[in-house]
Amino acid sequence: MSSPAIEYARKNYPRFMEELKALLRIPSISTLPENDADCRKTAETLAAELKRIGLENSQLMETVGHPLVYADWLHAPGKPTVLLYGHYDVQPVDPIDEWLTPPFEPTERGGNLYARGSADDKGQVMAQVKALESLMTAYGKLPVNVRVLLEGDEEVGGEGIAAYVASKPANLKCDFALISDTELFAPGLPTLCVGLRGMIYTEIEVRGPKSDLHSGMYGGAAPNPFVSLAQILAKLKDEDGHIAIPGFYDDIIPPSPEELAAWKSLPFDEEHYRKTEVGSPKLVGEAGYSVLERTWARPTLDVHGIPGGFTGAGAKTVIPAKALAKVSMRLVPGMTPAKAFAQYKSYVEKIAPAGVDVEVRLIHSGDPCLIPVNNPYIQAATRALHEVWGKDTVFIRSGGSIPIVGDFDRHLGAPSVMMGFGLPDDNIHAPNEKFHIRNFELGIESLIRFLEEAAN
Amino acid sequence: MSSPAIEYARKNYPRFMEELKALLRIPSISTLPENDADCRKTAETLAAELKRIGLENSQLMETVGHPLVYADWLHAPGKPTVLLYGHYDVQPVDPIDEWLTPPFEPTERGGNLYARGSADDKGQVMAQVKALESLMTAYGKLPVNVRVLLEGDEEVGGEGIAAYVASKPANLKCDFALISDTELFAPGLPTLCVGLRGMIYTEIEVRGPKSDLHSGMYGGAAPNPFVSLAQILAKLKDEDGHIAIPGFYDDIIPPSPEELAAWKSLPFDEEHYRKTEVGSPKLVGEAGYSVLERTWARPTLDVHGIPGGFTGAGAKTVIPAKALAKVSMRLVPGMTPAKAFAQYKSYVEKIAPAGVDVEVRLIHSGDPCLIPVNNPYIQAATRALHEVWGKDTVFIRSGGSIPIVGDFDRHLGAPSVMMGFGLPDDNIHAPNEKFHIRNFELGIESLIRFLEEAAN
Repeated sequence: MSSPAIEYARKNYPRFMEELKALLRIPSISTLPENDADCRKTAETLAAELKRIGLENSQLMETVGHPLVYADWLHAPGKPTVLLYGHYDVQPVDPIDEWLTPPFEPTERGGNLYARGSADDKGQVMAQVKALESLMTAYGKLPVNVRVLLEGDEEVGGEGIAAYVASKPANLKCDFALISDTELFAPGLPTLCVGLRGMIYTEIEVRGPKSDLHSGMYGGAAPNPFVSLAQILAKLKDEDGHIAIPGFYDDIIPPSPEELAAWKSLPFDEEHYRKTEVGSPKLVGEAGYSVLERTWARPTLDVHGIPGGFTGAGAKTVIPAKALAKVSMRLVPGMTPAKAFAQYKSYVEKIAPAGVDVEVRLIHSGDPCLIPVNNPYIQAATRALHEVWGKDTVFIRSGGSIPIVGDFDRHLGAPSVMMGFGLPDDNIHAPNEKFHIRNFELGIESLIRFLEEAAN
Repeated sequence: MSSPAIEYARKNYPRFMEELKALLRIPSISTLPENDADCRKTAETLAAELKRIGLENSQLMETVGHPLVYADWLHAPGKPTVLLYGHYDVQPVDPIDEWLTPPFEPTERGGNLYARGSADDKGQVMAQVKALESLMTAYGKLPVNVRVLLEGDEEVGGEGIAAYVASKPANLKCDFALISDTELFAPGLPTLCVGLRGMIYTEIEVRGPKSDLHSGMYGGAAPNPFVSLAQILAKLKDEDGHIAIPGFYDDIIPPSPEELAAWKSLPFDEEHYRKTEVGSPKLVGEAGYSVLERTWARPTLDVHGIPGGFTGAGAKTVIPAKALAKVSMRLVPGMTPAKAFAQYKSYVEKIAPAGVDVEVRLIHSGDPCLIPVNNPYIQAATRALHEVWGKDTVFIRSGGSIPIVGDFDRHLGAPSVMMGFGLPDDNIHAPNEKFHIRNFELGIESLIRFLEEAAN
């Protein structure tokens, strides 16, 4: 299939690729203060580009972190308004030695473009921008009203955009959001993500002795907060992956039989996944549930780190006064962060061993979300994807939590279309991140057709 | 009781105190590179003082760490040779805000001398030196042959002295060692430490995914090394303090009924100990054993830290590729480090949950030791202590491990007399370290009398 906008895009792919490479050369690592100027330069580059292609009100908006990039074009009366979202910041590059080519020198190899940020998320942001350019140039206007909102703190928590969305909903008024920060389920398979797990991120602090004690002098009589903490953690989840918190599973809304059947037909090779993605001797988790069910539709509990005590090289014989565990749980539809946290806190306090004081704290939380597939924008997206990819769209969920989806829903009343073009092996957050070049091109075409379809 | 040497000492206490204060003003913190010069200055001060009082061959001996101080006087033919040991390095002073007077400005208050290193161990080292000075000045000679060996790395592992002793130098040949780095069981109660726990210090490394994974994407299918580690640790020691490693308790030689009876008669208030020393809501440990038995004569298992993963402030949703636990066990007479480690390693490997690889490493180990109280030097010490303190000596053990005691035994064939004059509330390794001034004086007198008695 084709359209004037798609024709334009196809003629300009070589230039689009050069422009993407230029953007990728700016090391916009949001977590490193020494890259602050690079983040701002990336934001300025994108704002200038949005202005160049014909959007209006192009500007940077300051936040507690890196600036937001905003632009709009609101001259399609009677047509829906879409809020395009992506992020221009990237992950750090460590371990740098494992990169085959420098992370900020974009390199084409085997049909892929290798660079930090190529898939996550600059390549996808540029796909949005180039779709808008193609539409604008081919027609002199856009088929729908458009707002673009790009953030520079996605990899460090997104505090700035969350505050902005919560405080200035009028500036972001829209009918739906288009988020390009996800991936295809498999190469060549058009994919929409329609469900996300929520989460509660917590800390358990265990306090024993009033100060650090010598384990020789006091070992055997003084409580050891690290031992107590291990005993608590071991009671949270058993070795079969079952979470032991009473009532934790009670409110779960399971996927429909149709959704489960659709997941079963997805091309998924568990052994390949174990070997190439996870790399552990064995996969783990609740018996009776497939990997996709376990990661998309079942809650989990993970421990991220246990700071405190002695962490240096060698040996120090201390009974630390306290120990801390960073523990999070992913929640699925039906569950609420408030209830899950209350159940968890009460259980931890109950199982705390004698000799120590235990405090359970909530650090942050996010609701699970499930987007109805009969939503008209999802329907428009599937039509567009079928035209470009020649295949029916698969609806998947993600085990992750994209808080901005909940924020758009809560504060703007806007459902999100999560249409992304990464691949599972793109090495995002890892060395040798890549973006499949053909996906960049088909991504642009998909976005062009989606915005055309969304106008209907 | 008295003797010319004791008379001399009594006349010179004010000067001895000023000399101790001068030594305490040098901040010889062995773990801080910026205090390297202070450590050397302390060593030089002591070497000069040993020469001044009439010892020979006074010298610094270089090590991988701070220098050793050595001196000798070997002109008592037919008499035993004693190796006096102490350390001139001190602990760091953090948290500095909790000191009532500056740690390196020795201050007398309520019969105590407050300063970092006052009790641990400069005050005790100076008690040895001043005992030697008193003997030498009063008699023009010493009653026994004397070697002095002081180290500057005791607070950082003592690697230098261990290597030196292991090389079995001819200039450490001696009949027994006199270690002044312990404490009285209670104020006014002459005490000899005759037993030490041994130890194995280990690391358990648990490896799951090949690299750090996103807990949203993979949580529920990928093994979490921190969760697995907690499950392992929780199976090592139960909530009643019982170590679950098969065979771990098999070879323990329990204290004799006489020793147990003696411990029972020691002035020990468990609630006072809990409140003032440990400061935890409750004491823990094996049922059926007193606190002294649990800390002196029963093995323990402690976790010192669990480095790795995410340890920063806030939240990061990572399933870390690996987790590490620093785990040590204290061993008691009858147990050997080699067998204990083999039992532990085999058990950990057996209980390792599915999905992860586990490696158990031995970092270092030390033998438990028990010194027979019918040893003639111990007997001489009890006679001396009775004369000075007017009370029978109590024989205690320590739950800690003083590796140099094992080194002297193994490499020099020398039993140790651990005669120290600290008090349980001296705040060693903590703010407001102090040394009871009267114990400094009676310590000097005890050491004088002991060396006189040891000649018989």
